[in-house]
Amino acid sequence: MIKVVQYNMLFNLIQDVFTAMGCSAEHAKIGAETLISADLRGIDSHGVARLSGYVRLWEAGRINSTPDIKISYETLSTAVVDGDGGLGLVVAPFAMEVAIQKATHVGTGWVSVKNSNHFGIAAHHAMMALEKDMIGISMTNASALVAPTFSKERMLGTNPICVAVPGGQEFPFVADLATTTAANGKLEILQRKGAEAPNGWIQDLNGNSTNDSHALKNGGALLPLGGDREHGSHKGYALGAIVDIFSGVLSGANFGPWVPPFPAYVPMPENQPGKGLGHFLGAMRIDAFRPADEFKKDMDLWIRRFKSAEPIDPKEPVIIPGEPEAEMEIQRKKDGIPLLELVWDDIVTTADKFGIKL
Amino acid sequence: MIKVVQYNMLFNLIQDVFTAMGCSAEHAKIGAETLISADLRGIDSHGVARLSGYVRLWEAGRINSTPDIKISYETLSTAVVDGDGGLGLVVAPFAMEVAIQKATHVGTGWVSVKNSNHFGIAAHHAMMALEKDMIGISMTNASALVAPTFSKERMLGTNPICVAVPGGQEFPFVADLATTTAANGKLEILQRKGAEAPNGWIQDLNGNSTNDSHALKNGGALLPLGGDREHGSHKGYALGAIVDIFSGVLSGANFGPWVPPFPAYVPMPENQPGKGLGHFLGAMRIDAFRPADEFKKDMDLWIRRFKSAEPIDPKEPVIIPGEPEAEMEIQRKKDGIPLLELVWDDIVTTADKFGIKL
Repeated sequence: MIKVVQYNMLFNLIQDVFTAMGCSAEHAKIGAETLISADLRGIDSHGVARLSGYVRLWEAGRINSTPDIKISYETLSTAVVDGDGGLGLVVAPFAMEVAIQKATHVGTGWVSVKNSNHFGIAAHHAMMALEKDMIGISMTNASALVAPTFSKERMLGTNPICVAVPGGQEFPFVADLATTTAANGKLEILQRKGAEAPNGWIQDLNGNSTNDSHALKNGGALLPLGGDREHGSHKGYALGAIVDIFSGVLSGANFGPWVPPFPAYVPMPENQPGKGLGHFLGAMRIDAFRPADEFKKDMDLWIRRFKSAEPIDPKEPVIIPGEPEAEMEIQRKKDGIPLLELVWDDIVTTADKFGIKL
Repeated sequence: MIKVVQYNMLFNLIQDVFTAMGCSAEHAKIGAETLISADLRGIDSHGVARLSGYVRLWEAGRINSTPDIKISYETLSTAVVDGDGGLGLVVAPFAMEVAIQKATHVGTGWVSVKNSNHFGIAAHHAMMALEKDMIGISMTNASALVAPTFSKERMLGTNPICVAVPGGQEFPFVADLATTTAANGKLEILQRKGAEAPNGWIQDLNGNSTNDSHALKNGGALLPLGGDREHGSHKGYALGAIVDIFSGVLSGANFGPWVPPFPAYVPMPENQPGKGLGHFLGAMRIDAFRPADEFKKDMDLWIRRFKSAEPIDPKEPVIIPGEPEAEMEIQRKKDGIPLLELVWDDIVTTADKFGIKL
């Protein structure tokens, strides 16, 4: 069952929940913007469906709703931001603003973030750079669900990387990818359907490849992009590791198996070497390399040439990363956001807990 | 048949060939260093086996042996370098030096390069940052051999990404990966053996998955990391696209199907939008984020924790990217570099053409 909810109504509701958690008006607004950007772009797993998860983290004392987010160290092109345990949905946009400011002054800005929490979809933060004619980059580490090549043990999160590049007349190029074969959200869809997972998505408790879509819950692990050694899983593992190092080690956050879990009922890892989880944000001014209009003309050429690449099946043309999501955003802003009844009920229950009326 | 050649002897020979091509003493030395770094690290496909290929490009007028490599535009943290058609083996280290200089002054440095040529292994350039306690990043576009998801047509090169991170007592973390399921060099090994390629490596002329290791020669294409849509090939395609945009579009080099081919006998693509091929180099000073000794302590912890992850097979522990290559480098510098007789003969023939005696 699907319920279609108008964007403004949903936005106000989420904002009210964050306000009720104690967030300032500004933080509640930024947090709601970040969270709903996932639903607008069709990344339903990372949007309002997770609202109650964030609330539970706050209830468990693992999210600080009144953080003093600040720059703890900086140079002309870099900074470390301390999120003070705040919502990643708010901390990451703060850090991205810092990166954009630095890029404005010296061409590029790079910010590693510690003491944060889950930041929603990576694309939201990277895309903040677009309207300034900058390339935006964002990544985050996350709690360990992924086994490196040859490992039985979960050591990395799904550690996404996003790169957003301005187009001219075309939609921007926005690639936002988990460094696993499949995102956890896709696995959850198969679990609900009782369907099997394709080869190369997961392994079981003993490290054997499996099609059991429930294997992750039973002590198995997601697999790095590539799936197995023969198909390049060592590359997916390396990419996830780069995200972990840039987000966690460079900032002084936790990394690897020590990253705090998203579900509030999962115990915190022991002997954590850092603070909270980490992100890495970057902004590069296009005209720090070449005039922005020249670049955009070439970017449009790039996009059009790739869209017109000879398709295997004429009904399935080559897709430009970010284009389906941009079209979805236009449509959902206009027509509303379709939510599973289950998700809608969960939001209503969460709002009700704070006495928020619809 | 294998011939083991001592490092110094091979280095001098390559240097003499570049000098005979007209390179300055400095360029010949840098070019030889870059080329042989591949053999030292065990990436035999990208090392001295390609010497005659570079010479043929020079003979065809596609490489300028006396380039005026220069910064054509810059800001405090960025630059565009014009390689003037020179050997990528020389242009890329020049650009990496610029990135390192900028990082020294403002924390990070980012250089996009146009009008260059094939730059050897990505790791060589990224690793230049390590001794300065910086993280090094390098990538390059390359001539189109790879079909994006849903495409019959070759649109991208194998477009590698390398990230090199200093360790403390441990070897540095060096991830150097083509954004395809398998590098072209691995396919060539299967071709020589007459063996089949695994699923997900290549497709045929019509875009059908194939195990024919010769399919690439017959109009097929390499596949992006992931292999097919179900296994995440859209992610490998997106990563290759990011490399193409950073290296080609940002600098004003060629991109996509317009990148110049490595084999000198392959005609140049028509209506090229840019100049030569492109690279992207970056350097980030560790202490622009946190004290280098603290970072290295955590990096050693990262490396040791991942190495001790519970293995599926106790005889196959988890590998840290760059560690096998670092061990190989120590061994080959001491014991010599094993070359296929075929490769050695090709080098001798090339040297002989310039009247260079062994």
